[in-house]
Amino acid sequence: MDHVGASQILPEVADAMTPFLREKYANPSSIYGLGEEITDAMEETRDKVANLINAREDEVIFTSGGTESNNWAVKGVIQANRAGGNHLITSSVEHFSTMHAARSLENRGIEVTWLPVDEYGVVNPEDVERAITPQTVLISVMHANNEVGSIQPIAEIGQIARQHKILFHTDAVATTGGIPVDVETLNVDLLSLAANPFYGPLGVGAIYIRRGTKVSPFMDGGRQERGFRAGTENVLGIVGMGKAAEIAASEMSARMAHLIPLRDRLIKEIPSAIEEVALVGHPTRRLPGNASFVVRYIEGESMLLFLDMEGIQVASGSACISMTLKASHVLLAMGIDHGTAQGSLLLTLGLDNTDEDVDDLLRILPPIVQRLRDMSPLYKKLSKFKAVG
Amino acid sequence: MDHVGASQILPEVADAMTPFLREKYANPSSIYGLGEEITDAMEETRDKVANLINAREDEVIFTSGGTESNNWAVKGVIQANRAGGNHLITSSVEHFSTMHAARSLENRGIEVTWLPVDEYGVVNPEDVERAITPQTVLISVMHANNEVGSIQPIAEIGQIARQHKILFHTDAVATTGGIPVDVETLNVDLLSLAANPFYGPLGVGAIYIRRGTKVSPFMDGGRQERGFRAGTENVLGIVGMGKAAEIAASEMSARMAHLIPLRDRLIKEIPSAIEEVALVGHPTRRLPGNASFVVRYIEGESMLLFLDMEGIQVASGSACISMTLKASHVLLAMGIDHGTAQGSLLLTLGLDNTDEDVDDLLRILPPIVQRLRDMSPLYKKLSKFKAVG
Repeated sequence: MDHVGASQILPEVADAMTPFLREKYANPSSIYGLGEEITDAMEETRDKVANLINAREDEVIFTSGGTESNNWAVKGVIQANRAGGNHLITSSVEHFSTMHAARSLENRGIEVTWLPVDEYGVVNPEDVERAITPQTVLISVMHANNEVGSIQPIAEIGQIARQHKILFHTDAVATTGGIPVDVETLNVDLLSLAANPFYGPLGVGAIYIRRGTKVSPFMDGGRQERGFRAGTENVLGIVGMGKAAEIAASEMSARMAHLIPLRDRLIKEIPSAIEEVALVGHPTRRLPGNASFVVRYIEGESMLLFLDMEGIQVASGSACISMTLKASHVLLAMGIDHGTAQGSLLLTLGLDNTDEDVDDLLRILPPIVQRLRDMSPLYKKLSKFKAVG
Repeated sequence: MDHVGASQILPEVADAMTPFLREKYANPSSIYGLGEEITDAMEETRDKVANLINAREDEVIFTSGGTESNNWAVKGVIQANRAGGNHLITSSVEHFSTMHAARSLENRGIEVTWLPVDEYGVVNPEDVERAITPQTVLISVMHANNEVGSIQPIAEIGQIARQHKILFHTDAVATTGGIPVDVETLNVDLLSLAANPFYGPLGVGAIYIRRGTKVSPFMDGGRQERGFRAGTENVLGIVGMGKAAEIAASEMSARMAHLIPLRDRLIKEIPSAIEEVALVGHPTRRLPGNASFVVRYIEGESMLLFLDMEGIQVASGSACISMTLKASHVLLAMGIDHGTAQGSLLLTLGLDNTDEDVDDLLRILPPIVQRLRDMSPLYKKLSKFKAVG
């Protein structure tokens, strides 16, 4: 139940990649026949990814994943449009790759507005409009938060950006392939996506750049990707992403129909089985596989390790920060206090999860929580108080 | 004979990668058992890559390949050391990734010295020393040129850099795994490498950053790679690079002993079989598999396409620019005129090449060259002139 961390790639994806491990190899930039075969395979991927997000093929550029795409979008647009202004608007719940890219720009003199979110982690489009100044060159708000699952009003924000002729980027790593993502209805100029969330390989992704958008290259060098992104391509990963995109497009409704009832069981049954547990994120407008909670009086990391001993993998906070043991900036931005945020329990379901998995968790988790609470001095004090009260 | 374009990965490398296609998957940042298994596999790779270049494990950081490593080294050092100066020294024969990164810095106000090279494409260390100013913060000179094969006097340049307390980076993409690369004897602070030149996968590489070197992150985001390089890792590619590095370290002498005689046959026999052909690059201090020529009065691209029809893959100019049909900046920097540079024929041998391959080329190439020359108005005029003369 840690699909936000990593998902196993589909057998069909592995099968599509296998010939490119050894048999089919060539530098896609070479102009002889072998190179063309590789180029064709990559262009097929480009078609499939473009189709998944309703873009044109020449608007899709391959990257090493969501982090590169987000860094590129934020830094590349600001750099290419310095003459137009020095103001960036983003939210306070973005993925680290957007947030830290924005901070690094802030350190170099760019003005950044960090939009607040409501109790569900959702940005108010009116706040976006109010933050716009004549200096604003880019708005970057993620499509859905990977950690609390809430889906942002991207289409509305995009409309505001368009009215003000400001470029708009969304980090759609958590949504692409999982729910409908359409660059036209979302009104975005740039969009980041990664392959693994839709069961493609790790460490490969893409960026959508609407035709005519002014953005500096992120990696300088050769003429790969029509001069937009240098570097010999990760052909194996790209081919895998293509197959995964193709399947995601055709199976999206079935996948949502599988995930939503499982998610809703977790959302309903965990707070019944354990006291002092709260759902975080929006109750309904959330990612199909995301059930995110805070469990009071204990640390998420301990739950995670005890569950691992029972063969259940979950996350706490965002996967990218689990090594650092800090409270999630997303939960803090939603107004959850520091102590409570420590008890983050992030369950992210995937295609391979079943009702039995949910049953197992509901059987195994409550005694673990109780055991950890029994060791917690704060919880003991409160229990005593309750008993006395 | 286009190993500079791409090399087929070794069967052992493919075998090492296969379990990581599906069976072994997890986000390396997750702290539960599955994540640890992946982390262990990545740390094994780090040991093997460190061993290949005589570095410490904590000095090796994984990237999406040589282009990212070169961009990072050049931009990251300049950015982190702006207080120390605004001058970069590099050569006029660098790979596009270093050259264009330096140009993009030049556009942002950094002063760049472009060192000349001699007729063999080699930088003179005395020129490096003369170019140093109190503003110099970085010297970046490649270890060997991928296009003409010449090996640069990196250890000497490194000594000069050290005496002047200036950081020194080398792009060792063309050399790592092929000839001995030792960060200590080369006196480098940063070094770029990629996996495919030593028969690992495409689109994965590493950067060596000597302990204590001040360099800004290139990709901001999560805490992967101890905070040096954000983004979920291309686990599959990284594991493949580890296996390839291990084998390269143990088989390096045998590989050189296989390649050098084949290369030397090409260097000796092609100019005997075809008139008006010249070797480019240093006659002896060159990459074991590199035989680079200019064939006068014709275009390299045409040779390439005719050879492809006969089942022989070669390159012309650098693989990364073959789509653009421009004369190579490396050949021009070596003083070769624009017309002659068009006839670039780049043969790069690999483990799978044999004496029979050399025989085949020597049989097939001369009539192709003759046919193309017969169509060339310039060559006809000269022939007529010769006949008359």
